[in-house]
Amino acid sequence: MDIKVFFSSNAVSPRMVEKRGVLVIDVLRATTTLTTALANGAERILPVQSVAQARMEINRYPKGRSLLCGERGFEKLDGFDLGNSPDEYCRETVSGKYLIYTSTNGTKGMAAGSAGQTMILGAFINFPRPADYLYDLACDITIICCGTADAFSLEDAICGGMYVHYLSKNISSITTNDAAEAALALFRRYRESIPQMLEMCENGRQLASLGFRHDVAYSSVVGATGVVPILREKELIRLE
Amino acid sequence: MDIKVFFSSNAVSPRMVEKRGVLVIDVLRATTTLTTALANGAERILPVQSVAQARMEINRYPKGRSLLCGERGFEKLDGFDLGNSPDEYCRETVSGKYLIYTSTNGTKGMAAGSAGQTMILGAFINFPRPADYLYDLACDITIICCGTADAFSLEDAICGGMYVHYLSKNISSITTNDAAEAALALFRRYRESIPQMLEMCENGRQLASLGFRHDVAYSSVVGATGVVPILREKELIRLE
Repeated sequence: MDIKVFFSSNAVSPRMVEKRGVLVIDVLRATTTLTTALANGAERILPVQSVAQARMEINRYPKGRSLLCGERGFEKLDGFDLGNSPDEYCRETVSGKYLIYTSTNGTKGMAAGSAGQTMILGAFINFPRPADYLYDLACDITIICCGTADAFSLEDAICGGMYVHYLSKNISSITTNDAAEAALALFRRYRESIPQMLEMCENGRQLASLGFRHDVAYSSVVGATGVVPILREKELIRLE
Repeated sequence: MDIKVFFSSNAVSPRMVEKRGVLVIDVLRATTTLTTALANGAERILPVQSVAQARMEINRYPKGRSLLCGERGFEKLDGFDLGNSPDEYCRETVSGKYLIYTSTNGTKGMAAGSAGQTMILGAFINFPRPADYLYDLACDITIICCGTADAFSLEDAICGGMYVHYLSKNISSITTNDAAEAALALFRRYRESIPQMLEMCENGRQLASLGFRHDVAYSSVVGATGVVPILREKELIRLE
């Protein structure tokens, strides 16, 4: 089995993920938030790349049962129902709803990964269920660590490394790329201090400064849920 | 002092490096090769991004004293005098010559860094002299690890981490970005096995398979020279 990691979706072309299982990771906060939304009963989620597209797509969904969700630069958007804090995606708000969602980096990573044989979302909170699913698929794997504005994010790399570590423990013959080796080394360095790492990384500090310290703590709880978002026909649903 | 590292030149805009000291690293092989060229007496080097530009620029340099140099995808180009192996840049060949040079990833990184207050090239072979120069500048620093085709390269990240480590030992108050923290952690993981790391990384394996194993070994010798290429008026010269 071959495992490739990318630290930004920039370097990922559709051809590169063809026939591969794709895991998209944006710990702070897209993949943590969307996992939370499905765990709290959201019906389906349409991830879109642009704000304009989100505003257009919502018209195709049933009024009163659909929510316009997401952010740009950590901030909720004008006229949107929800921002990007997992706190907002509680059962009372999202249960039974269709979500149209866009974020600065996460939905770009999902667009890059959508050409894969299958695409799922991973975070610390739903580890290791995405890895178990990919393992059972028995195909080559691409892990897209979304990063921030085309640059490297520590929390995504370390979360990616946690998945590489888990998969490589269970597979006898494995090939990797440089980024997978680096992610693995970084996970080993920070494995005992994931909450602290999330607090000190760039996005963690930025979120805390904007009043979202609770999101950072919430995102660091490994294995809090078994829910895995999976892409089916352009929408994310809960993997059964 | 602020130190920012980038694992690809993609995420670096001119505005981001303004007023900063920029160190560009492409261990296999651009910055190793150009350091070697200046160490062996090359007069000046014009780094250009495209092959077409290289073919055009050579006409502006004195015939008989100019060499067309570089590669695409590890291979020497049609009609070029030299490829990208440091072995080719021996004293007999390059002494007193003007070099017009292009490479797949290295010259892209140099273009991104050229908007800095100053730009120098670093590798393992000229460590730590570039760091000493940047330290004396006493300005904020951006380290561009060129990577490969917009993706992460382990050898560039670890070399970048070696520079971050050296600078942070000598500076009392330092701020970093996530990639600088990761580079530092990766350097600490691999510091005792740099030649082995260069052999096992993606570019190292690829070069060995193409018959350039010697280049990989050559590139791993830390501190082999005190020569530092520095950009002056679009050309690289030897820092005195």
